[in-house]
Amino acid sequence: MSWNAWGDPAHATSLPESVRALVADVLGAPPCPSPSVAREELELPPSALPAAARTALEAAVGAAHVVTDDAERVLHTGGKSTPDLLRRRAGDVAAAPDAVVLPADHAEVGAALRACADHGVAVVPFGGGTSVVGGVEPLRGRFGALVALDLRRLDRLVAVDEVARTATLQAGLRTPEAEELLAAHGLTLGHQPQSYEYATIGGYAATRSSGQSSAGYGRFDAMVLGLRAATPRGTLDLGRSPGTAAGPDLRQLLLGSEGTLGVITEVTLRVRPLPEARLDEAWAFPDFATGTAALRALAQGGTRPTLVRLSDETETFVNAALSGREAVPGCLAVVAHEGTAEQAAAVRELTAATLRAAGGTELGGEPVAHWRHSRYSGPYLRDALLDAGILAETLETATTWSALPGLRQAVTDALTGALTTAGGPPVVTCHISHVYPEGASLYFTVVAASGADPAARWHSAKRAAGDAIAACGATISHHHAVGTDHLPWMEAEVGALGLEVLRAVKDVLDPAGVLNPGKLVPELP
Amino acid sequence: MSWNAWGDPAHATSLPESVRALVADVLGAPPCPSPSVAREELELPPSALPAAARTALEAAVGAAHVVTDDAERVLHTGGKSTPDLLRRRAGDVAAAPDAVVLPADHAEVGAALRACADHGVAVVPFGGGTSVVGGVEPLRGRFGALVALDLRRLDRLVAVDEVARTATLQAGLRTPEAEELLAAHGLTLGHQPQSYEYATIGGYAATRSSGQSSAGYGRFDAMVLGLRAATPRGTLDLGRSPGTAAGPDLRQLLLGSEGTLGVITEVTLRVRPLPEARLDEAWAFPDFATGTAALRALAQGGTRPTLVRLSDETETFVNAALSGREAVPGCLAVVAHEGTAEQAAAVRELTAATLRAAGGTELGGEPVAHWRHSRYSGPYLRDALLDAGILAETLETATTWSALPGLRQAVTDALTGALTTAGGPPVVTCHISHVYPEGASLYFTVVAASGADPAARWHSAKRAAGDAIAACGATISHHHAVGTDHLPWMEAEVGALGLEVLRAVKDVLDPAGVLNPGKLVPELP
Repeated sequence: MSWNAWGDPAHATSLPESVRALVADVLGAPPCPSPSVAREELELPPSALPAAARTALEAAVGAAHVVTDDAERVLHTGGKSTPDLLRRRAGDVAAAPDAVVLPADHAEVGAALRACADHGVAVVPFGGGTSVVGGVEPLRGRFGALVALDLRRLDRLVAVDEVARTATLQAGLRTPEAEELLAAHGLTLGHQPQSYEYATIGGYAATRSSGQSSAGYGRFDAMVLGLRAATPRGTLDLGRSPGTAAGPDLRQLLLGSEGTLGVITEVTLRVRPLPEARLDEAWAFPDFATGTAALRALAQGGTRPTLVRLSDETETFVNAALSGREAVPGCLAVVAHEGTAEQAAAVRELTAATLRAAGGTELGGEPVAHWRHSRYSGPYLRDALLDAGILAETLETATTWSALPGLRQAVTDALTGALTTAGGPPVVTCHISHVYPEGASLYFTVVAASGADPAARWHSAKRAAGDAIAACGATISHHHAVGTDHLPWMEAEVGALGLEVLRAVKDVLDPAGVLNPGKLVPELP
Repeated sequence: MSWNAWGDPAHATSLPESVRALVADVLGAPPCPSPSVAREELELPPSALPAAARTALEAAVGAAHVVTDDAERVLHTGGKSTPDLLRRRAGDVAAAPDAVVLPADHAEVGAALRACADHGVAVVPFGGGTSVVGGVEPLRGRFGALVALDLRRLDRLVAVDEVARTATLQAGLRTPEAEELLAAHGLTLGHQPQSYEYATIGGYAATRSSGQSSAGYGRFDAMVLGLRAATPRGTLDLGRSPGTAAGPDLRQLLLGSEGTLGVITEVTLRVRPLPEARLDEAWAFPDFATGTAALRALAQGGTRPTLVRLSDETETFVNAALSGREAVPGCLAVVAHEGTAEQAAAVRELTAATLRAAGGTELGGEPVAHWRHSRYSGPYLRDALLDAGILAETLETATTWSALPGLRQAVTDALTGALTTAGGPPVVTCHISHVYPEGASLYFTVVAASGADPAARWHSAKRAAGDAIAACGATISHHHAVGTDHLPWMEAEVGALGLEVLRAVKDVLDPAGVLNPGKLVPELP
């Protein structure tokens, strides 16, 4: 992972000429270079880990696995939101963790957490480090030292049950590795978020991730049959059955807990056979409203495709322009069906009938192939845009089908209002990325001139968009989680009494308060 | 509701001759009369509600809605488990609540709970009173008085969103009334547990109910998009979106909370259009293992029927004998598809292909019609059996497909071991009632001679079965909940630390501890 950008530095891209031209044209502002400081210019503060804490951590995970060198520390200095990247690109690594701790297994995670609790050391659980909401920001809270607890050594496939079609995976596995281990059994997880290449199994669970094929495979939280978490107070093993009425579902407290209640060390997940067939098909709709109604008909019907996404008119145009193709008029949807050949074909027929009746036109598989080719590359483009003085960021939300049009308008207006300058308005695109019988998510991409203070510009835009989301009664995050960035809206989400419940649960599991301070639950005033 | 039996006294049945003969034949013991005491023989203790508490409750809900007459009190003296009925049939109504409180709406529920908390009065939230696990047993805990909080006046359809296909229903609605209100909008809930006629919307949510058509409509907890609960500390409004990553899902703490954390006053539920078509079909399998594998293939396939159940050989035989028909050899499965005519037909084709390939034989719709005709009548038969000195009770659990055969054997052995007498073994039947991709529920019915102390006999059998379930790693309840009867296995379910979490949540929401004492979470030793 790059320290100041998305992903593998070898895959970094310079700004394609098509994008440069488009940006100059649409934003009315030519890109102007805005490079990052170089790695060698960084000055990390010396590690502040007290000797006694270090000794205790070394006893927990072994001396070789308490790492204080700058190379590791800088790679754990926050996540991958645009504000994160802007901060590091400007050379600000003052918050770097004092050590990176690398436990080998569940027991060592527990021991490391107890050591941190005993010695008053804040601990940020760290998977792929792909958070775009400040979830892995190294905030010390009231503590004098902070470690990142990197789970990358927890990388085993623990068990496979081919009859029940479940697999138990350790938290530190990245998706491609997990899929490779499962493929040896003819199985797949089918979880494909944009962070696919870097994010980890544990991170997906801790943040309630959702993948691009969620229509068929489900949200990540819905795939979790069981989970194991280490806390400073001991172990939680939750989830005994595919369905149960034995009280409240405590798994659902750990799912989405973002490392504040415990560290998820392994999860038992629903897996599926590697699909025999995959049938890709793009559809055009005359406008977003017609396309939205078509997706709703699919989501509310008795059968459903594996993947379905709908870009609005602007995104349809921009995506085509980026790849040098001609845009279809209106809106493009990508649709796929996976499964046995017979099942995929039968459900595809039902889907096609629904979409045709709803005003869609079949376009064949080629636009889906294009989409598949570039579906993980958006974040690399963001880095190239930042280099060129262009701010590019995303945000997402979800609501019911009935509230969706109003939500889209309100968020678009909020972003446009906050980011319009003398040079003109920003580009705001939107797509429906995940569908449910009752509603869907909306995923917004914003491109604007960086201006003199891009972080402040984005902060005000994000604030306006978040307030618009809350005012619409929608959720502040469909699949990016809370981290630090969404704290202002958590009371709207669960109420003051709900926050009290979350604090009480934390007091039981993490009485010292060392677990990921400053995330998920706003601190008491 | 009858005070000492299931359901409407007008629907009570005497023991059919076919059952009488079957019981005599199979159990080797002729029925011998064991009648209940008569209603007029009951002596309820006088109401112990202190005057100050009464005044506060009257201020909360109106004087007319704090009822202390014996007729109401006796109807709230526990639920409908066999031990409950045995106790009341023996004339034991010593635990009768001191009053029945009937709030009109959410605000009055909250006010009543605050009054109870202020005056140290235990409160048992009461919906249909159909609990079969002691969930509405009037246990005073450390309090001197107890009221039943009957929600029957909360009987409104609050809102319908026909675009998102959601409906907001008040907690006290019984299913037939709820379905009637929804049918006026062309909608249905599709939730059909055996308690359909009496259980309430709030009770379903508070106990994580599951209906017979769960394969198509889902478990009740999975239908809940939002819920509102009153607690002594204020209101919880939870669930802002069909999908969210905004932290832990606190709805999942209230779902299954059985009135110990708050009182669910309304829920926003997924609803569906009334089905255009319903295609019923029964299937025969040579044995339970073959049938189980067939159901697993369906549950793990890309499409699924609306309803699917599989009886084992004994249940197949007994059900046929009870209705005077000839049993199919092997095991009978009932299957149904609902939806638009086109969807139902298409999915039925896929189902039929799967079941045929798995060794099933089509039997047409007639056995399903039989099953539908009698599907809510089992509890009435239990009463007739009790009258005749025959113990009949059910229990249920769930596990993964791989653990299912071992679980079935272990529970059958436990029940048989505990209930075999000189007269012979009990009859133990089993069916798969709910399926998931990863596993299924098992529903056991036990029929045995009552003996001199039927309550003690059942208690030892239940204990043996529960221990067998826990030893198999299965859940202690798939859809009946915890109540008092499953307390001994809650630590196996969520661990000691999980119990601490539940207690901490209760301390926030119900600091006085008045809400449904003695249920869900074992008391500290």
